[in-house]
Amino acid sequence: MSRIVMKFGGTSLADLDRIRNVARRVAREVAAGHEVAVVVSAMAGTTNQLVAWCQALSPLHDAREYDAVVATGEQVTAGLVAIALQEAGVDARSWQGWQIPLRTDAAHGKARIDAIDGELLIARMRQGQVPVVAGFQGLGPDARVTTLGRGGSDTSAVALAAALKADRCDIYTDVDGIYTTDPRMVPRARKLHRIAYEEMLELASVGAKVLQTRSVELAMKERVRVQVLSSFADADGGDLPGSLVVDEDEIVEKEVVAGIAYSRDEAKVTVKRVPDRPGIAAAVFGPLSEAGINVDMIVQNISADGTTDMTFTLGRADLPRARATLEANKPSIGFAEILADPDVAKISVVGVGMRSHAGVASTMFRTLAEKSINIQVISTSEIKVSVLIAADYTELAVRALHTAYGLDAA
Amino acid sequence: MSRIVMKFGGTSLADLDRIRNVARRVAREVAAGHEVAVVVSAMAGTTNQLVAWCQALSPLHDAREYDAVVATGEQVTAGLVAIALQEAGVDARSWQGWQIPLRTDAAHGKARIDAIDGELLIARMRQGQVPVVAGFQGLGPDARVTTLGRGGSDTSAVALAAALKADRCDIYTDVDGIYTTDPRMVPRARKLHRIAYEEMLELASVGAKVLQTRSVELAMKERVRVQVLSSFADADGGDLPGSLVVDEDEIVEKEVVAGIAYSRDEAKVTVKRVPDRPGIAAAVFGPLSEAGINVDMIVQNISADGTTDMTFTLGRADLPRARATLEANKPSIGFAEILADPDVAKISVVGVGMRSHAGVASTMFRTLAEKSINIQVISTSEIKVSVLIAADYTELAVRALHTAYGLDAA
Repeated sequence: MSRIVMKFGGTSLADLDRIRNVARRVAREVAAGHEVAVVVSAMAGTTNQLVAWCQALSPLHDAREYDAVVATGEQVTAGLVAIALQEAGVDARSWQGWQIPLRTDAAHGKARIDAIDGELLIARMRQGQVPVVAGFQGLGPDARVTTLGRGGSDTSAVALAAALKADRCDIYTDVDGIYTTDPRMVPRARKLHRIAYEEMLELASVGAKVLQTRSVELAMKERVRVQVLSSFADADGGDLPGSLVVDEDEIVEKEVVAGIAYSRDEAKVTVKRVPDRPGIAAAVFGPLSEAGINVDMIVQNISADGTTDMTFTLGRADLPRARATLEANKPSIGFAEILADPDVAKISVVGVGMRSHAGVASTMFRTLAEKSINIQVISTSEIKVSVLIAADYTELAVRALHTAYGLDAA
Repeated sequence: MSRIVMKFGGTSLADLDRIRNVARRVAREVAAGHEVAVVVSAMAGTTNQLVAWCQALSPLHDAREYDAVVATGEQVTAGLVAIALQEAGVDARSWQGWQIPLRTDAAHGKARIDAIDGELLIARMRQGQVPVVAGFQGLGPDARVTTLGRGGSDTSAVALAAALKADRCDIYTDVDGIYTTDPRMVPRARKLHRIAYEEMLELASVGAKVLQTRSVELAMKERVRVQVLSSFADADGGDLPGSLVVDEDEIVEKEVVAGIAYSRDEAKVTVKRVPDRPGIAAAVFGPLSEAGINVDMIVQNISADGTTDMTFTLGRADLPRARATLEANKPSIGFAEILADPDVAKISVVGVGMRSHAGVASTMFRTLAEKSINIQVISTSEIKVSVLIAADYTELAVRALHTAYGLDAA
């Protein structure tokens, strides 16, 4: 007997038939003798509608009222899933954040979970009852409803799994697992049966949006084993294996490279001819940071004639604001001009095996060179090598790398 | 300065424009120096959708889950109205039932309010903040969300007005007041500026469905002055007078008859030739009561040859079940046959002035006789005379009585 948290996203709960399907899946785990808690998102589309109403009434709406409004979507699905489970003969009840309570900080609209009291739910599970928990929501220190930010139900599920000391947290979504790269781009992409937390974090943050990043961070911190599965395939049969996100020690046969990620939401900025003096990086990046602009890859060229060029990447949506911020600080920075290129893509090769294997980066560079793809910026971390290239070459680069690292399905 | 509870129904909150209208109305009362609390229903249509989902998943759904689901509609409008008020420059916050708390009994789906802690809301109102309370919902003794049954937001508003010691409870609805009869049937119907609680109860229970019956009972018990107003007419101008439901002592010039009500949802049943013995009424009506069938008017004919006929009315929807129940109990009752007539209407003349005026009933009988309308059953109470007639004569009867009692508008 295991204790399992099962989380279902909005597309898995989009109508009553799918809700019945969810109930059948849960009933199957219960029948197999497991203790199960369920976490639900809102029906697909509901949260967007509620958010749109708040914004239409007031662009700068009170985040506490926004939370009270948008948290209702998950309360509806929690109640409906509980009803569907009862109809399927499974004892169940819905729980809202304030009833557990699932306590968060006061950051309405993007709250972080502080503590979950698991005792009540554990007692119910031991009696055979399935708690159906409204995801995405909690109780703030002001005794008001908070929400965790978009995609927060994944985080709710992982946090609940930690609080309930669950053996596994199963995240049912509209993909059937985590792939070596985007299967829509590379048909020969392979499903990963196991992936390390750190790899998942790098893949998530560079564009493979299967799990919310915060949920993976939390899973890593709390050592929660997370399984990503499809809620559509095989709704009535046995278990199709998904992808398990686990500690790297649990992965016996480590691949050097677990996957290839890409992001086309990048832009490149070059600040030309800044004075090469101590503190110049702070002068450039301080104002950007204060403006809330996240800078990713940074390269500083070798200095010539007392000046240097600084190149960095950022989210493409931030480009106009970044340019304006730099222009406003031109007197204190002292640059010649700003060049911006929105037509770039970031390609990343990720794998915990890199820690013990040399040659990963050079394979990447050689592969891209063979396809005549020019590398504009390089950055590396312990388990990742990223390059910036012209956006037009994205698919070519991803496919070539996927083959080069031996990731293609047989 | 007065303290006012303003309640808005679903049609008054059906879209964002109407929600902004509601905010403007509230802002006007606040600008006039009043302390205001708002109670809201769900957007028109929302509750029906949520109820339909629960019923589709399980016809005999858990009422506690039903409550968790359907209570969300009011949480949405409470948050949205609070946002609209803030946008209009009025300090406001939403309150859910469990936050106040508004405590109810455990009868999920049709809970009754036990107690409302008004201290927190009064303190906020004194600071100039407008509480926007989700109607229809409360907190049960099991720490779960309860709902008060359909139309329950009226009851929420009246109960809140009592708890807040409000000077008045204004119910904004899609009619602009309470009329001497249905204005769609009688164009010369007159708006009543004041009506006694007892009159309102009789008018509501016989078909004039402006206010939920329980809300009027509660208003009478707690002596809450209730005003019924339109939320559509005159949204931006001054106050159009509505109808005030008050203690009859507040009505200086009492009319003998306040209004004429009708109901076409009735059916008449006659049980022929039952033995005229002690206990026969219990034998007939006991099984109906156990089957949850409400019987209204009852007439027993004069006995002949040791048997009698019993005639009564009931809701038309209950007719098949009533017939089956009686047939099942035929051995213990011992009747000859059952006659049923679904084509009947109940016409009622209501007025607290009847207590001190004779001749109200005879005016009714004479007026109907002049129109050749046959009276099938008669029943009277202290402030009401009701007759059952053939349904085809409904309009004719109501119009003739409206004129006969001097109720026509000039």
